[in-house]
Amino acid sequence: MLPTVYRGSLALLTDLYQLTMAYGYWKRRRADRLATFHLFFRKLPFEGGYAVAAGLGLAIDYLRQFRFDDEDLSYLATLRGNDDRPLFEEGFFDYLAQLRFNGDLEAVAEGTVVFPNQPLVRVTAPLLVAQLLETPLLNLINFSTLIATKSARICQAAQGESVLEFGLRRAQGIDGGLTGARAAFIGGAGATSNVLAGKILGIPVRGTHAHSWVMAYGDEPQAFAEYAEAMPNNCVFLVDTYDTLEGVRHAIEAGKELRQRGHKMVGIRLDSGDLAYLSSEARRMLDEAGFPEAAIVGSSDLDEYVIQSLKQQGAKISVWGVGTRLATAYDQPALGGVYKLAAIQNEQGEWERRIKLSEQRIKTTIPGRLQVKRYSRDGRVVGDLMYDELLGEPNEKVIIDPADPARRKKLSAAMECETLLQPIVRQGEIVYQSPTLAEMQARTQTELARFHPSVRRLLNPHGYPVGLDRKLYRERERMIQAARGLEQED
Amino acid sequence: MLPTVYRGSLALLTDLYQLTMAYGYWKRRRADRLATFHLFFRKLPFEGGYAVAAGLGLAIDYLRQFRFDDEDLSYLATLRGNDDRPLFEEGFFDYLAQLRFNGDLEAVAEGTVVFPNQPLVRVTAPLLVAQLLETPLLNLINFSTLIATKSARICQAAQGESVLEFGLRRAQGIDGGLTGARAAFIGGAGATSNVLAGKILGIPVRGTHAHSWVMAYGDEPQAFAEYAEAMPNNCVFLVDTYDTLEGVRHAIEAGKELRQRGHKMVGIRLDSGDLAYLSSEARRMLDEAGFPEAAIVGSSDLDEYVIQSLKQQGAKISVWGVGTRLATAYDQPALGGVYKLAAIQNEQGEWERRIKLSEQRIKTTIPGRLQVKRYSRDGRVVGDLMYDELLGEPNEKVIIDPADPARRKKLSAAMECETLLQPIVRQGEIVYQSPTLAEMQARTQTELARFHPSVRRLLNPHGYPVGLDRKLYRERERMIQAARGLEQED
Repeated sequence: MLPTVYRGSLALLTDLYQLTMAYGYWKRRRADRLATFHLFFRKLPFEGGYAVAAGLGLAIDYLRQFRFDDEDLSYLATLRGNDDRPLFEEGFFDYLAQLRFNGDLEAVAEGTVVFPNQPLVRVTAPLLVAQLLETPLLNLINFSTLIATKSARICQAAQGESVLEFGLRRAQGIDGGLTGARAAFIGGAGATSNVLAGKILGIPVRGTHAHSWVMAYGDEPQAFAEYAEAMPNNCVFLVDTYDTLEGVRHAIEAGKELRQRGHKMVGIRLDSGDLAYLSSEARRMLDEAGFPEAAIVGSSDLDEYVIQSLKQQGAKISVWGVGTRLATAYDQPALGGVYKLAAIQNEQGEWERRIKLSEQRIKTTIPGRLQVKRYSRDGRVVGDLMYDELLGEPNEKVIIDPADPARRKKLSAAMECETLLQPIVRQGEIVYQSPTLAEMQARTQTELARFHPSVRRLLNPHGYPVGLDRKLYRERERMIQAARGLEQED
Repeated sequence: MLPTVYRGSLALLTDLYQLTMAYGYWKRRRADRLATFHLFFRKLPFEGGYAVAAGLGLAIDYLRQFRFDDEDLSYLATLRGNDDRPLFEEGFFDYLAQLRFNGDLEAVAEGTVVFPNQPLVRVTAPLLVAQLLETPLLNLINFSTLIATKSARICQAAQGESVLEFGLRRAQGIDGGLTGARAAFIGGAGATSNVLAGKILGIPVRGTHAHSWVMAYGDEPQAFAEYAEAMPNNCVFLVDTYDTLEGVRHAIEAGKELRQRGHKMVGIRLDSGDLAYLSSEARRMLDEAGFPEAAIVGSSDLDEYVIQSLKQQGAKISVWGVGTRLATAYDQPALGGVYKLAAIQNEQGEWERRIKLSEQRIKTTIPGRLQVKRYSRDGRVVGDLMYDELLGEPNEKVIIDPADPARRKKLSAAMECETLLQPIVRQGEIVYQSPTLAEMQARTQTELARFHPSVRRLLNPHGYPVGLDRKLYRERERMIQAARGLEQED
């Protein structure tokens, strides 16, 4: 059976070590200890100043259908260890068969602007099930957040002009195309070429014709005329199959013909060559011929940098078709999100914090059960304060940068404040009313507008203040010292 | 409905313009003209010397289930043009409802070494259906070929040592992980962490425990002991949660305990820090403690370059766990494969060649119905000759580089020769017996071994001779001149 036709359970969409650990927790009677994990990334993608959270809808969907079926368990029963004996004993399969997600999950809404080290998702659940979810949650959230962020950057470069996502043919697999189209829409792309994404997600779809249409006729004027004849209400003529400016002249002829028949040419598309020069020439020709309202669609290895450059050169493109570089986040095709244990109950049911040290300070985790408050004044955000709910509400409003504790930001009582992590699942029950994709897209726009333009800048953005409250900062430093002390004792 | 739970038809997994063109072909009565399209890429990925074809099995799978169901057609009926009237008329849906792939398809077997401009897939079918398949075929073949190539390069750097694919958490969507695992296996990776890929594709799976296991206990010796207790036949201890070399000492203790109980420690894993130094130290410690056969697994942002560098530094790693950089082909996350019309029947049923010009010479297509002969002598390949079946078999055995016609390679009669494109589908019937994934993996190895090491080199590889036969070369030049002449006449 191949991935293209697989229709079964996704419970095994995880790394094997999650299942071997799950088995270990079950064997060693730790499976039901409650634990808190945070999903977060450590570094903003694309050397940018922000990221846009996405993928939560997919994660909820995954949780809703999460269960091991007989096929899953039969497969697991075939796995062998280095002594050629089964990895798992039978009783474990009975346990898995009845397993459902029965914990709590909080997350930031899709379309929320997020920063390094902030939890995008927080899971508090029995250790075993929380552990199993690591891989699927990372897979779903990492990719969607990456693409939503890329899309937001591209839309920003397009300065409010329409961006179309065209990347399916170069996307990483079928779901890369589908999930990619979804995330690109959340980030701001207005439509996709992916018809399946239109059907199952309701994203507007766009498309007219390719070079092959023109090549099938061999003769460009005939090809345009025949297309206009067949589909007069969807005419964007692709003009660069042979000679671009000649193609523009042929499109104008076809446009005049359309007009005589009571229809309207939507525009033309440029897919190669010097888009700055060609679009200016095409604009002039279209205007002179009486088509000032005809759109010029540009496509051809576009991304936020090329769009920005074309705009600076005065390119007359009003619709931007972006494929590969959006669908795969070409210049950084993975967000390094991680999912880390931050607190766990001991035998007495008391919560204990956990920290993972690293020689790289940026990789030392933040312990506790984290929540984030975002402060704003007059509609403009000023800083994010992360605190540990196990230590209670923050009492001093000072944001301390854990990487450089001298960097502090004082917050005033007059500021407004919102809590980023929202309840999604409570004891296995979904309590979250998912917004529509259009609402998520609107959220991205509204959210980004609240940040200073220097934070949104594509290159060398200003660092937005994000840090810990004093109680959390001190507790973490104490734990780092204690862990180091412990090492020295050995 | 979200991509994670979508179980319906994949016929709409295409760009909208394929459907609007299909509609145009249907309306203008060109739908049934036979046409030949080639799927090929123009540039080798990773600045390498070769690529490894993959994804054919997925494409066959796609063709087998290709049909429009009622849901698809109902969705298409909702689409509107710029006059707010339906894009498609009703009769078209009746046509689509009965549409199946009824053409011919040839392709290179998965695991075949391929080069720019060579067709990986050739479709000869009624124009309408051949056009619709462009996007899904590109999606499936582009990504798989990209990852199989990356995997082959990584395995080459590992010099025959075991490579494990660990990338699911950073893969681009669910299918990115699944299809990625499949392609990585074809390229040479021996196993994956992705359990679903194990279940549905039969790829060997590997995994033991993560940092979270150690953090859940807080105490590393206890964590190792408990893991060994739970799963004594699958012990690879991850030693870098707190202090790596201390972790190695704890693993050795756990390994001794395992040995006393009649089990065997498989090895340890290093996931951070200076892998060259730490693996040498760990090797020495394991050897001195009586564990010379314990494997050292290395992981941590590995790719072919890092592995090559670690080997040059004498790192004592024998198993390479490669995640993000393999699963996403991080340094070049898309193969720029295209699908171009190269010949079409006219009204009289005669074949006419088609060419697409470009200002960039590399982008001018190769017309005809192409096939490739690969010549070899004494088990070593010497060059690939592309010819047009519509012009008949090549009579002179000279390979002409179309980018630089002065570069020619003469072939001798004594050479052996094989034909790369194999029949896969004949008039809609699948006539190909798909090899197993293990056979595809073996093919990659056997194939690569036939190429001179200079072609396989990771950096600045030698260019392998690939070109056109004289008849095809002349016909193409004639068409280029004719097309240019045509433009000048206007």
